[in-house]
Amino acid sequence: MYRHLFRAKQSAYRRMSSSTAKKPSVQQPEWFPPTKKSNEAGVLKLYNSLTRTKTEFVPLVPNHITWYSCGPTVYTHSHMGHARNYVSTDINRRILQDYFGYNVQFVQNVTDIDDKIIIAARHEHLFESEIVNKYEGGVTSELVDLVKTALSLYISKNLPEFKSSSEDNSGFLEWTKSIDIQAQAVTIPKFPMYVKAASDAQLALDNVQSIETADFFKSVKDVTTPHLDSKFGSEINDPSIFRKLPRYWENQFNEDMSKLNVLPATITTRVSEYIPDIIEFVEKIIANGYAYATNDGSVYFDTNKFENSSDHAYAKLQPWNKGDMSLINEGEGSLTGGQETKKNPADFAVWKASKPGEPMWTSPWGQGRPGWHIECSVMASDIVGETMDIHSGGVDLCFPHHDNELAQSEAHFNNKQWVNYFLHNGHLHIQGQKMSKSLKNFITIEEALEKFNARQLRLVFAMNAWEKTIDFKDSFVKEVKAYESTLSKLFTTIRALNNDYKYESSLPGSFISKRVGPTEKQLYKDLASTQSEVHDALCDNLSTPQALRSIQELVSKTNNYIQQTSTGKVDLRIEPLLAISNWITKFLNILGFETRSDGLGWLDAEELSGIAETGNGSSSVEEIAMPYVKALSNFRDTIRNMAINKEELSKILSASDSIRADLIKLGISLDDRPNNLPALVKFLNASEQEDLINQQKEKEQALLEKEKKKQLQALAAEQKEKERLAKMKVSPILMFKDESLYSEWDEEGLPVKDVKGEEVTKSMRKKLAKQQQQQKKLHEEYLKSNN
Amino acid sequence: MYRHLFRAKQSAYRRMSSSTAKKPSVQQPEWFPPTKKSNEAGVLKLYNSLTRTKTEFVPLVPNHITWYSCGPTVYTHSHMGHARNYVSTDINRRILQDYFGYNVQFVQNVTDIDDKIIIAARHEHLFESEIVNKYEGGVTSELVDLVKTALSLYISKNLPEFKSSSEDNSGFLEWTKSIDIQAQAVTIPKFPMYVKAASDAQLALDNVQSIETADFFKSVKDVTTPHLDSKFGSEINDPSIFRKLPRYWENQFNEDMSKLNVLPATITTRVSEYIPDIIEFVEKIIANGYAYATNDGSVYFDTNKFENSSDHAYAKLQPWNKGDMSLINEGEGSLTGGQETKKNPADFAVWKASKPGEPMWTSPWGQGRPGWHIECSVMASDIVGETMDIHSGGVDLCFPHHDNELAQSEAHFNNKQWVNYFLHNGHLHIQGQKMSKSLKNFITIEEALEKFNARQLRLVFAMNAWEKTIDFKDSFVKEVKAYESTLSKLFTTIRALNNDYKYESSLPGSFISKRVGPTEKQLYKDLASTQSEVHDALCDNLSTPQALRSIQELVSKTNNYIQQTSTGKVDLRIEPLLAISNWITKFLNILGFETRSDGLGWLDAEELSGIAETGNGSSSVEEIAMPYVKALSNFRDTIRNMAINKEELSKILSASDSIRADLIKLGISLDDRPNNLPALVKFLNASEQEDLINQQKEKEQALLEKEKKKQLQALAAEQKEKERLAKMKVSPILMFKDESLYSEWDEEGLPVKDVKGEEVTKSMRKKLAKQQQQQKKLHEEYLKSNN
Repeated sequence: MYRHLFRAKQSAYRRMSSSTAKKPSVQQPEWFPPTKKSNEAGVLKLYNSLTRTKTEFVPLVPNHITWYSCGPTVYTHSHMGHARNYVSTDINRRILQDYFGYNVQFVQNVTDIDDKIIIAARHEHLFESEIVNKYEGGVTSELVDLVKTALSLYISKNLPEFKSSSEDNSGFLEWTKSIDIQAQAVTIPKFPMYVKAASDAQLALDNVQSIETADFFKSVKDVTTPHLDSKFGSEINDPSIFRKLPRYWENQFNEDMSKLNVLPATITTRVSEYIPDIIEFVEKIIANGYAYATNDGSVYFDTNKFENSSDHAYAKLQPWNKGDMSLINEGEGSLTGGQETKKNPADFAVWKASKPGEPMWTSPWGQGRPGWHIECSVMASDIVGETMDIHSGGVDLCFPHHDNELAQSEAHFNNKQWVNYFLHNGHLHIQGQKMSKSLKNFITIEEALEKFNARQLRLVFAMNAWEKTIDFKDSFVKEVKAYESTLSKLFTTIRALNNDYKYESSLPGSFISKRVGPTEKQLYKDLASTQSEVHDALCDNLSTPQALRSIQELVSKTNNYIQQTSTGKVDLRIEPLLAISNWITKFLNILGFETRSDGLGWLDAEELSGIAETGNGSSSVEEIAMPYVKALSNFRDTIRNMAINKEELSKILSASDSIRADLIKLGISLDDRPNNLPALVKFLNASEQEDLINQQKEKEQALLEKEKKKQLQALAAEQKEKERLAKMKVSPILMFKDESLYSEWDEEGLPVKDVKGEEVTKSMRKKLAKQQQQQKKLHEEYLKSNN
Repeated sequence: MYRHLFRAKQSAYRRMSSSTAKKPSVQQPEWFPPTKKSNEAGVLKLYNSLTRTKTEFVPLVPNHITWYSCGPTVYTHSHMGHARNYVSTDINRRILQDYFGYNVQFVQNVTDIDDKIIIAARHEHLFESEIVNKYEGGVTSELVDLVKTALSLYISKNLPEFKSSSEDNSGFLEWTKSIDIQAQAVTIPKFPMYVKAASDAQLALDNVQSIETADFFKSVKDVTTPHLDSKFGSEINDPSIFRKLPRYWENQFNEDMSKLNVLPATITTRVSEYIPDIIEFVEKIIANGYAYATNDGSVYFDTNKFENSSDHAYAKLQPWNKGDMSLINEGEGSLTGGQETKKNPADFAVWKASKPGEPMWTSPWGQGRPGWHIECSVMASDIVGETMDIHSGGVDLCFPHHDNELAQSEAHFNNKQWVNYFLHNGHLHIQGQKMSKSLKNFITIEEALEKFNARQLRLVFAMNAWEKTIDFKDSFVKEVKAYESTLSKLFTTIRALNNDYKYESSLPGSFISKRVGPTEKQLYKDLASTQSEVHDALCDNLSTPQALRSIQELVSKTNNYIQQTSTGKVDLRIEPLLAISNWITKFLNILGFETRSDGLGWLDAEELSGIAETGNGSSSVEEIAMPYVKALSNFRDTIRNMAINKEELSKILSASDSIRADLIKLGISLDDRPNNLPALVKFLNASEQEDLINQQKEKEQALLEKEKKKQLQALAAEQKEKERLAKMKVSPILMFKDESLYSEWDEEGLPVKDVKGEEVTKSMRKKLAKQQQQQKKLHEEYLKSNN
């Protein structure tokens, strides 16, 4: 590839004689720098909602990305729509971080002040205080009356089509059978929900004698809480009531995200922790002339003023939705009044006056709380400053939420561009339709995780372009599962082939070739071109579906190769298979799939469940647990055989000591404790283990020495006995016949003169006589025993 | 940061009334593309031995790198010098791959044909066949004579300074005490090695009566094998002898590398698998006029011809070493003769004629084998083609090996630049000196891993610039350990704080703030600037020491923050600590350190040993093993208590059934087998586990039903007995006094007439009398038992 760069010029050193060439004086020959290829294919482009085109991504600071992601409003379960938004965002974040190598500061908020939260918190509180706690003893007629009233109100408000002929709505259940609920839902989306809530309550009333109290409470909750709220809602002023509910759902949200393997934010901001900053931010907007306070204590953004300023543009994302009152009102929230005090119907609240029964903070405009959009402007600005690289969120937030955020922030900073790249994740449809509780296709994340594992769900999102609508329909789920299984099968095969290779090559004298031939070289080329294709796909707006398709083709080619080797057409080489498996695994890991640490695939279902149980990213529970399980099994075998063979209990007891010793070798100490407490299980570190092993050795050594001593003592005793026996044999008459000591004896054999011929003293003779007497006894014993 | 980009131009849509604004017709306002920053700091530069400067790295194909690394010559243990080379290369490879995102094709050879290998293989073979196998029965006088002869020859060849006064060198050991061995080593580097080998042999001869045979063999090996080789070496012609030794050491090398966590090559090439390609390559060089065959069957590279060609330059790396005969001869190998047949002393062998006792292959020039340098040219070219991006190796290989490789390849392809970037790893010194067996500072990788763990060794290399000499001295090792401990301590602290946070925030009603203040913002800024510093350091010739220094500063700042929170100066926020820990962990992982899957640090020593044992990259063996160990411990407790309390063996047996059932809940089945075989341990997948649990339930259900049936039977028996007792109470005289049946009785109470007044038949009376007789007996029994 390189020969076109030849240059004829020769440097002088070549003609120098080699003997005179020394390092300091000799120059190196010319080096030809490689030509930089045009980098067109390598430019990362993102679909920017601010231009509705794919635009080259240029960060404010090279290698860094500041990113603000619209987080959850925490008042109920997260659903598949949330999963779509957060997992798709997570995949994008991981690609920018782990593929393109950016240092991403990812800020995400928690909306813990919001009209929906206020209502849910009040309902929850009133349900507990006015029903659960009050009637825990049982359903009384008072409660029945309350429910009847509430149900009537509920029906007349939400299902006015039902004309009751009686006071107690007794014909209601009959009526529900006569109407087409799904058809009604087309015009009133919540129709089926209303019908269900009212039916549940009606059924509970009808069966009040037989129904469990707790079930009664549950069945009437949805119809009674609005009624209770209208009666007592405005009396609720304990701030902890408005804090408790969002805190609970924030934790639930975090758990759902963790189950989906979504990376936590680098920085989490909660609205409730930003009230003073919000007030200050609003003051600045007012000071800049783009917001105004009204008599009732609210502050509104002046959309006309902003729009007419030559420095600014309103509704940058969806200018065609400006003035759409239905979108605007939905954005304002159900507890917000004040339409009449606005200068312009399109103006939106940045600060809302709070009514009784709503959380409130002191502000220059009276007791109130932040509007919805202002929080994101304030929190994002606090962390990332007056311009950020990326802002992301669901596509349904474009207008008014994100457009109002942009307006507020640019009004506050008086700048022209608060966000450089606005990324909006597409919708999620279920079986071709929008997901909604009414359409019975509403799926919470918890429910989804019962039917699919986190890998399958992530694959659902990765196999779709993040900015497009996903249709979560059966045929697509089937496609996802097929893709999953194709990859899993390849990984399983390569692992098996690799194990085989490792085993075979460990045999002495074995020689397994690693030489690559044309077939393997082609496979490496396929890998390289897949890598380029994947790079191009990711540069093209992070297109994971395109990348995964390229990988699927590589998998086919790899399977073909394996097929060829199994039919004997070519000899198997393990290295290209490992290279392919390692690279695919690395890529899957970048997309946020849990992968094996050996680079040979993702974690399979059983290993994933192992992780869930142990909270551990290990690749194989089996490998780790095996030695301990084996120890357990062996111990059980021993005990079982002892019991079957009717061994003594003492042996069983000593078996329980042996297993203790064996476990130390596995790094575990079982400390027996008194009072029937179970043994304490300790995982030892290396030095603790060594100490215990040494202690054990010393103990064994001591036992051995004791045994040895005992043996020596026994030996000595035996020797003594032998000597005694030898002594016994000697006749008392002959016992002093030692010519080295004595020279003369009497007839009894007692010495008379010593060896020098001198007379033995009297006292000495007495002593010797005594000894002779003793020997006499001994000898008689000997003679006796010999008979 | 962004306000300088304001432009005043307003697009037309702003003045459109919002009511008429519809998606298709409304244009979005202007978007201001961010300015590209000058990328000077972001350019990757590598120190290229071909220019001796840091040069911008430009790959041949964007995002891809072809890389050839000089691999091991496999004939003995790998040492710390090898570790330095391969770990430093591994770190560089990982940074290019996992930090800069290149797809790296990393080719590494195994030199399994080489003069050193030939000699080692012959020595090994002759030692086995001529000593170990021949004298396994014991040391004979024949062997003693052989060793004496060998020793004399060894001493006179290697230690001629020793003038023996006797035939058997008996004064040798005395002589060694009289000389300064280390001083001699300055002029004769191998002097201490020769002294040791000769002394060992002399001592073995002196103690031939008492020494163990195996020890004798070992002690005389080094002095006898050269003698045996000179006698029999030329007779060795079994090719398997020359294959066995390198295969063994290749496996050892791979094991060492795996222990050091060095990534395996993408493609491994072995010289022995490339002989036909080498012959072809040599033919091409000859055809191109840059090599010539000699009469003795060797082929030499014509350095003069190459140098004088206007297209080429010889010794591009170290032109000042051209003609250095000591380097040239060392490069040619100890078995190579033929100096006299070369055109020029600087010419080097590309094909060597083989003498008897050397492995040989048929070639156009006769029986021979490849020269050293040619292998790399051929194997690298086969895989990466006529130009590669990177070639790497130890700095001592520059001349002649790499310079000759370049010359051969460029002569073969007739191109000007075979390698674009030549990276040479620096030397390793031990305590300030070159490592050598003679200086007693020679450390094999195996020995190093007994004193240090793989992490410490990698840190030694990462804390030094890869291209510079490392001095592996005590003070530096201390520094490395201090660095290691600084990081470990931070990780431990952050993990503890995070556990604390998770626990506290899981408590109901708890609220732990995540709001970042100025102190935390500063910490995030510190993180971001460290990230930039690390990026710059890596761009600057992959400077890991500079990167690690920056990280150390970040660690200090983080510790300061933690210190402030512990003294109550600021409230602790967990998120910045997690962000820092995650990022450092990710960076360490890129450098090839084993890290935890939760991103909170590297694996600590105990966890690393867990990995070594299980071959698994898990972060905690304890977590995974615990449930099984607990089951074992509980079972042992049960058994132990039963034995202490002298329970029945049947109970112990049934305990062994219970543990079996309990284990199924942990996903393990123990299948008891006959014939004293140990139970078979099975790790179950989810569905197998479910089946077994169901089976167990069914079994329990069946047992329950059986029990129930038994109870019912017992109840029925009891009822029957009750009835019998009731019957017993009745007096035989009264037993037929039933007026619904009879109307007249005799004095015995036997019926005479039935209820209709008709006489009871004779046969009937007989029957009734019999019944009365039975009742009489029963009633007497009753009366008796009542007394």
